[in-house]
Amino acid sequence: MAATWEESVTSSINTIYLLFSAYLVFVMQLGFAMLCAGSVRAKNAMNIMLTNVVDAVVGSLSFYLFGFAFAFGEGSNSNPFIGTSFFALKDIPSSSTYDYDFFLFQWAFAIAVAGITSGSIAERTQFTAYLIFSCFLSGFVYPVVVHWVWSSSGWLNPGSTRFLLFGSGSIDFAGSGVVHLVGGIAGLWGSFIEGPRVGRFDAFGKAIPIRGHNVTLVVLGTFLLWFGWFGFNPGSFDKILVAYPDTTDQGNWTAVGRTAVVTTLAGSTAGIITLFGRRLLVGHWDALDVCNGVLGGFVAITSGCAVVEPWAAVVCGFFAAWVLIGLNILALKLQFDDPLEATQLHGGCGAWGLIFTGLFAKEEFVVQAYDSGVVGTSRPYGLLMGGGWGLLGAQVVEALAIVGWVSLTMGPLFYILHKLKVLRISVDEEIAGLDVSSHGGQAYVHTDENQPRFYADYVRMQAN
Amino acid sequence: MAATWEESVTSSINTIYLLFSAYLVFVMQLGFAMLCAGSVRAKNAMNIMLTNVVDAVVGSLSFYLFGFAFAFGEGSNSNPFIGTSFFALKDIPSSSTYDYDFFLFQWAFAIAVAGITSGSIAERTQFTAYLIFSCFLSGFVYPVVVHWVWSSSGWLNPGSTRFLLFGSGSIDFAGSGVVHLVGGIAGLWGSFIEGPRVGRFDAFGKAIPIRGHNVTLVVLGTFLLWFGWFGFNPGSFDKILVAYPDTTDQGNWTAVGRTAVVTTLAGSTAGIITLFGRRLLVGHWDALDVCNGVLGGFVAITSGCAVVEPWAAVVCGFFAAWVLIGLNILALKLQFDDPLEATQLHGGCGAWGLIFTGLFAKEEFVVQAYDSGVVGTSRPYGLLMGGGWGLLGAQVVEALAIVGWVSLTMGPLFYILHKLKVLRISVDEEIAGLDVSSHGGQAYVHTDENQPRFYADYVRMQAN
Amino acid sequence: MAATWEESVTSSINTIYLLFSAYLVFVMQLGFAMLCAGSVRAKNAMNIMLTNVVDAVVGSLSFYLFGFAFAFGEGSNSNPFIGTSFFALKDIPSSSTYDYDFFLFQWAFAIAVAGITSGSIAERTQFTAYLIFSCFLSGFVYPVVVHWVWSSSGWLNPGSTRFLLFGSGSIDFAGSGVVHLVGGIAGLWGSFIEGPRVGRFDAFGKAIPIRGHNVTLVVLGTFLLWFGWFGFNPGSFDKILVAYPDTTDQGNWTAVGRTAVVTTLAGSTAGIITLFGRRLLVGHWDALDVCNGVLGGFVAITSGCAVVEPWAAVVCGFFAAWVLIGLNILALKLQFDDPLEATQLHGGCGAWGLIFTGLFAKEEFVVQAYDSGVVGTSRPYGLLMGGGWGLLGAQVVEALAIVGWVSLTMGPLFYILHKLKVLRISVDEEIAGLDVSSHGGQAYVHTDENQPRFYADYVRMQAN
Repeated sequence: MAATWEESVTSSINTIYLLFSAYLVFVMQLGFAMLCAGSVRAKNAMNIMLTNVVDAVVGSLSFYLFGFAFAFGEGSNSNPFIGTSFFALKDIPSSSTYDYDFFLFQWAFAIAVAGITSGSIAERTQFTAYLIFSCFLSGFVYPVVVHWVWSSSGWLNPGSTRFLLFGSGSIDFAGSGVVHLVGGIAGLWGSFIEGPRVGRFDAFGKAIPIRGHNVTLVVLGTFLLWFGWFGFNPGSFDKILVAYPDTTDQGNWTAVGRTAVVTTLAGSTAGIITLFGRRLLVGHWDALDVCNGVLGGFVAITSGCAVVEPWAAVVCGFFAAWVLIGLNILALKLQFDDPLEATQLHGGCGAWGLIFTGLFAKEEFVVQAYDSGVVGTSRPYGLLMGGGWGLLGAQVVEALAIVGWVSLTMGPLFYILHKLKVLRISVDEEIAGLDVSSHGGQAYVHTDENQPRFYADYVRMQAN
Repeated sequence: MAATWEESVTSSINTIYLLFSAYLVFVMQLGFAMLCAGSVRAKNAMNIMLTNVVDAVVGSLSFYLFGFAFAFGEGSNSNPFIGTSFFALKDIPSSSTYDYDFFLFQWAFAIAVAGITSGSIAERTQFTAYLIFSCFLSGFVYPVVVHWVWSSSGWLNPGSTRFLLFGSGSIDFAGSGVVHLVGGIAGLWGSFIEGPRVGRFDAFGKAIPIRGHNVTLVVLGTFLLWFGWFGFNPGSFDKILVAYPDTTDQGNWTAVGRTAVVTTLAGSTAGIITLFGRRLLVGHWDALDVCNGVLGGFVAITSGCAVVEPWAAVVCGFFAAWVLIGLNILALKLQFDDPLEATQLHGGCGAWGLIFTGLFAKEEFVVQAYDSGVVGTSRPYGLLMGGGWGLLGAQVVEALAIVGWVSLTMGPLFYILHKLKVLRISVDEEIAGLDVSSHGGQAYVHTDENQPRFYADYVRMQAN
Repeated sequence: MAATWEESVTSSINTIYLLFSAYLVFVMQLGFAMLCAGSVRAKNAMNIMLTNVVDAVVGSLSFYLFGFAFAFGEGSNSNPFIGTSFFALKDIPSSSTYDYDFFLFQWAFAIAVAGITSGSIAERTQFTAYLIFSCFLSGFVYPVVVHWVWSSSGWLNPGSTRFLLFGSGSIDFAGSGVVHLVGGIAGLWGSFIEGPRVGRFDAFGKAIPIRGHNVTLVVLGTFLLWFGWFGFNPGSFDKILVAYPDTTDQGNWTAVGRTAVVTTLAGSTAGIITLFGRRLLVGHWDALDVCNGVLGGFVAITSGCAVVEPWAAVVCGFFAAWVLIGLNILALKLQFDDPLEATQLHGGCGAWGLIFTGLFAKEEFVVQAYDSGVVGTSRPYGLLMGGGWGLLGAQVVEALAIVGWVSLTMGPLFYILHKLKVLRISVDEEIAGLDVSSHGGQAYVHTDENQPRFYADYVRMQAN
């Protein structure tokens, strides 16, 4: 017997919505690649782009084989910490669990995480080390956090029917914490253990600017990430055809649209604040900073995008900009060198996003998103909206749990790679650039003249 | 009580259609950024990209706070000239007015307008002046025109139940006039008041070519704009789930597909004509001209895309190419310097698009688009299709009203900025380039050597 | 009488699905443009981008006027070899045949074919010759193959009610054969008849690497093609709202999602194998080869994407990588110069894709895709899955028929152009580059200094 017409219509509508959202999230991988490429020096452009391609292809197989299972594997023996079924898509699709569209959407999220971290360790990391940390992060560390927050059996899940932390669970709708804070903290450890790039700080600890080689690519990447975020945040409802019982005309379709608007306003506000803030601080209108400001606003709103009013998004973006500006100043003082500012941007604004949601989440929207909008449900919501401390407490716990988990897993990994001397390239290679030392030549050839294609050529030409 | 299943299905389908169309229109902002970047000299690349980012972020807030209200604010005290409600999304969403998806779609349109104009005044405008004109144009001048034509209470609206100009109202389906002619006329005044770039015309008035720095970016931008136009034109039906009473199987879904086909044919025809036309005129196959030709075809069809047959799109594109070629020749004769040809392309082809619709609109399609396809409705349509002078008259009135309104608002604004000496940069800065003078350095760094980062450095280095 | 609500919902859902898929397929044209631009030398960048724009604009008109008719024209006088109705969209739309969304989807496929071939003959072909072969290929040679395989009256069609080759018909779901093998074989003949680029092989037949000028563009193009493939493969179901009679909850919506996953896994596997395979062969991590490996995996899975399990996609991608690596080694030995590896990639992996489907197609999925999932239907499927030789035989016949047809049409065309001396540019022009010789100047201008804009300037400057 086939599905009824009503079931078929519902499945078709929800599949279109989720699949095309997944395609947009995939564009973020391209956005990251362009953003990273433009932000590093020309001599390392091929390297960082290859890492983005490798995140996607390696992430596809590892998420298919075990990542998705660690994240969403549920069943009779489910536990709150890690999933244990659906390896290699076994038992998928099934009407009682997940269809392929959900897998693809989650796959697009998974491959993004390692991309964030690759920015932190750019321009000085051995490719082998990259392959190892990338697999470990997107195949194990990240899926476990997903299980905690987004799987119905997770210990932080706000929609669970079994256990709600502080009666609330943490609200991390599209992953300020799950995705961005995870990637940012991993980057923090990688960048800290590797140390700054050669020439980033002089003998007196004064910062020397190292400029990226192509602002056009940075702007291209920023806009592509913006485009992709329309899949990331509004797509995270998973289903669009869900009516709300307490209104006569609203449903997830309303909330999906509102989420897109809220996301746009947060990113835009952060961009404007950064534009004028940096103008005051550095004395010129800085395109690069505005791009990062916009992204910081997006990262921050990603947690609460579905449960706050548009005006709150403006508040979120305003503070996200200052979090980013402040952390960048702090990083300089501490001689911390993250070429893409990924730690500050994804880590700092991601953490702020979790707190923001605990302060500004609106009761009506929380109930709609996590209790199917049943009237009369009572649960914690934003502290400043009168919803008590339950939600904010859960948000802080999520942030601390992520920082702890990622530090305990990625910290030792980077340290072991460092001790085994497979983490950082040699100073000579770093000065020559990764493209000639590891990837067979420069990314750009603008003349017909000979250029060094291999590190040996480079050394020989330098010797002459 | 929740929405019925039929209502939920209808809302979900229409929301998916309109939101994903809005995402595509947003891509046009990226397309403009890349087109503009490639069309200017390398020394001004960062400046023009920053203006595109700023259009988006500033436009988001101003459209949220008041732009949308000026455009679509209706209610008991509505008037035909400017909207007066929905400030900061107050009373949105509501089943009787608009949902968030409509706001986002219109937001994506609004941020595009200033992007058009920024091309006209590229390579010589102070950034502060840019901020002022951009806010004024996208926050006030443009929304007022939107209200006239697209708001149900507007005096030019063709679907109004209260007043139809010449019994017709003007048909500007996706905005050849509302968007492109507005942007083009604003660019005309900006470019005229600023005057040509240094070195654009020699002492004898002979034009000296100033080539953009990167054709790849121009092609990238053109294709992205093409992609975005699939949201701009086919998306402008707002709803796809609308059946037509006079056919057994057609509805907006048919018209949406036809609009995509019609748009494609107009742009393609204009591209081909430009390819061969320019080959005859300049003697080589010019990639840049073909790109502009394609865009000119799109601009022209944007007004009538929903109400003409595919064969008419070919006619539209054919003449759009010659309008563009002709106006470019005229601009050279008049020593008018618009670096992106935005006045000629968006202004000229936009005006032609309004006229074209008045000539070729098909009765059946007009009734379907603006009278819910009710059989027996009688209204003016294309003059050459036998529909009388009513529609063509309204189209001419729209064109004249836009030219007048934009001239009366943007003309004085640019003139005041000019008199206050905050419009144009100094000759020295223009020669040095905006990127070093205003934005902290060059857009491109292809070596590790020192480059001037600030204008002071540049001056000092020139002095040595 | 209007369409019923059920009909309206069905049409709206299917139109959204197919139109937005078509938009994604269109992005592949941009992806090809960027991939090609980055893979050639800077002096030919404008030329190859112009060819991609021209494919789109010329292809639009020719596909509208006659290409679609040759491909899908059916009716009372239909025949298995070429379509004969629907010229210039006559009688479209009609509920019994096609609507505009289907035309647009097929248009986006048609313009891709010539883009594949343009890679093979890059950097040495006269633009006039390009225009001629492009029209002939996308307007006649390709549509005929489409008719054979995808039109219900075609002699290879697997869903025909009149004739099934070997009781099966060939399964080429999204066109490993119809699109990629056609483009690859056309490229084979073009490249073979033109011969290698100047300087590609030395006097002893040893290959001298000619590197593309911009790896960033190659990565950008690859990711855009990946994005577009989500329209190409999952979009090829044409309708998403189709329930399967032999399951209680599945329908085309399940298969569409699975197709996206299968496509991703095949491309990713091929990318990984290429990454490590090339590391072993050439000694460094090669970003360009990984990009081509990913694309090779996509090309191969395009035939069977709808009818194989995810694990089989891994098998498909694994062998696709080795097919590509092997054919590239063979091409060097044979002194065959295809600048984009289009013959090896689209031809070789396309042929492998047809065979793969004959080996691994799963009965349940084949029945769902081609027999509306009717239980009890018996038809051949993958040989290794126990489905007999019928399908594999039909796949081999399709491959041979395509190789034969394209060779018999495109081979003589290229040969005639060669004999008329309008195919290849002169050696002097080739060394100068097509951009100065044919397109009015270099693609890139990074200084204000004078550069040769025309070939005559170039010659004069060389003479000084």
